[in-house]
Amino acid sequence: MAETKRKIVTIGGGTGTFVVLSGLKHLENVKLTAVVSVLDDGGSTGRLRDAYGYLPLGDARQALIALADDEGLIRKLFGYRFTKGDVAGHNLGNLLLTGLSDILGSGADAIDAASKTLRIKGRVLPVSTTPATLVAELVDGSIVVGEHVLDERNPTRARVAKLSTKENVQANPKAIEAIKSAHAIIIGPGDLYTSTLADFAVNGIAEAVRTSKAKLIYIVNLFTKAGQTDNFSATEHVAEIRRHVGRGPDYVIVHSGEFTPDVLSRYAKEMEFPVKDDLAEGEHVIRGHFADIVIAEKVEGDSVPRSLIRHNSNALAKAVDTLV
Amino acid sequence: MAETKRKIVTIGGGTGTFVVLSGLKHLENVKLTAVVSVLDDGGSTGRLRDAYGYLPLGDARQALIALADDEGLIRKLFGYRFTKGDVAGHNLGNLLLTGLSDILGSGADAIDAASKTLRIKGRVLPVSTTPATLVAELVDGSIVVGEHVLDERNPTRARVAKLSTKENVQANPKAIEAIKSAHAIIIGPGDLYTSTLADFAVNGIAEAVRTSKAKLIYIVNLFTKAGQTDNFSATEHVAEIRRHVGRGPDYVIVHSGEFTPDVLSRYAKEMEFPVKDDLAEGEHVIRGHFADIVIAEKVEGDSVPRSLIRHNSNALAKAVDTLV
Repeated sequence: MAETKRKIVTIGGGTGTFVVLSGLKHLENVKLTAVVSVLDDGGSTGRLRDAYGYLPLGDARQALIALADDEGLIRKLFGYRFTKGDVAGHNLGNLLLTGLSDILGSGADAIDAASKTLRIKGRVLPVSTTPATLVAELVDGSIVVGEHVLDERNPTRARVAKLSTKENVQANPKAIEAIKSAHAIIIGPGDLYTSTLADFAVNGIAEAVRTSKAKLIYIVNLFTKAGQTDNFSATEHVAEIRRHVGRGPDYVIVHSGEFTPDVLSRYAKEMEFPVKDDLAEGEHVIRGHFADIVIAEKVEGDSVPRSLIRHNSNALAKAVDTLV
Repeated sequence: MAETKRKIVTIGGGTGTFVVLSGLKHLENVKLTAVVSVLDDGGSTGRLRDAYGYLPLGDARQALIALADDEGLIRKLFGYRFTKGDVAGHNLGNLLLTGLSDILGSGADAIDAASKTLRIKGRVLPVSTTPATLVAELVDGSIVVGEHVLDERNPTRARVAKLSTKENVQANPKAIEAIKSAHAIIIGPGDLYTSTLADFAVNGIAEAVRTSKAKLIYIVNLFTKAGQTDNFSATEHVAEIRRHVGRGPDYVIVHSGEFTPDVLSRYAKEMEFPVKDDLAEGEHVIRGHFADIVIAEKVEGDSVPRSLIRHNSNALAKAVDTLV
């Protein structure tokens, strides 16, 4: 008799989720579901969203690429970014998903079609089937509207108190179902409020995670993010997860190890620093060497430069493999 | 023993070649090769050409779509045109071919990769593997540089005397080989100088067609084109083919039949009129009802409105079927 597949759901978006999925897809005996944000309103995705009003699928694109066959040409096309002419800054994957949305009539159908074309391992679900705008209420009472506004590096900004969506959108029922029936839910790494917790601003997601029997695994960021998590230690990251999700992680994966002076100085210029591991010892904290240096310079059309250090996909996947 | 396949080569580009190939692909027992222009310098293709310098593949795109499976989603994506935002006027197929050229390093490789993805029936060959600019010398001695300049409707412009390329480019050896070994070569319909004869401005193409044992089939345009073929009768079209190619057609396919007053008045507004059939009677002239009314309004990003009448793909294919 075939062993029951382990159902693993990731919630989030951006590069962090891309890295996690890139590793998880190589695990045996898993059924992967990536619940991705539809709150992106900056860069290539934001420009297409403004023009067309379709579900913004920048995070879906990254998840699709992560789950696609590593060697495929279609995967390369989905990840291709124009750097010249009037299309500079646009990502071909975003353009394809916009065309698919227009041809097929919905963003969710566009994701399904792209999933087939890319022959992805697993599936990608938008957190909501209608576009939404992230609203952050800060502890000083001010309001920030738009993921890309909150994403801008602004170290003097007050901390985030509460996240919601301007449109008060409801969760995609398929995403709720996937969360409820999961064996494990992985959140992070990623910009805490604009990637990791953004999906929890959508009605129904936090409740589904709270009531799910799945193990909740949180992967702590390597560096703080200027304007979002300045001076946050690992414990503070975990506390924010607990506060926004309404449930603490069952396992916390945290990187142990030094960074090179070059990497440290590059991040310090952006007022970003390694996340201090002040978590209590215990079986629920998984420490190890989970970091890779990646060279990714600022890309034309992006408002922020790309990180220079990333989690190691395979190391994360191995850690998850032992937990689920 | 399998019957030898009939090798049919089309030379040209644009909508005319698209229509011909769309019909020919349904014929049994044929091996199709579309030799397409790399002289396009207007619209979406021109903008990408200016930015990237790759082989302009707008005509290749149309041939690829024509030869692709009619029902495929990828085919729809290749033909999808953006109408909004900063990508308005760009064709997704052009963007894909640009991305492929960048990833694979050459326009010819991009065509090959797209051919596989689209699972086309036949093959598409660029007339030259280097980009070229069309130069027209007019009978009044003036020079027009650029296909899109010559393509502009200008009924007061002098007739074209001679076509060449600014870069003096050489033909793609694979295109020469296909022409030499063909059983039939089809040219037209299409804008006489900017589509049908443009490829003959590339060194080696006219000579290959002259010396090929293939039957040369010319499909006469339905309407004159303002600024290129004002007042040209069918005989004048054929004479221009003979003069530029150095060989007259073995067969001429010409539409017989009236157009509706609506169609006539729409073309008349553009100073365009039905091509008068003044060809001598004879077995080498194939007359029939070869026209379809197609509604295609002016598209944002295009300099000229799309035609409202087209050849009928299947009728053309049936006629060719009896000749080859």
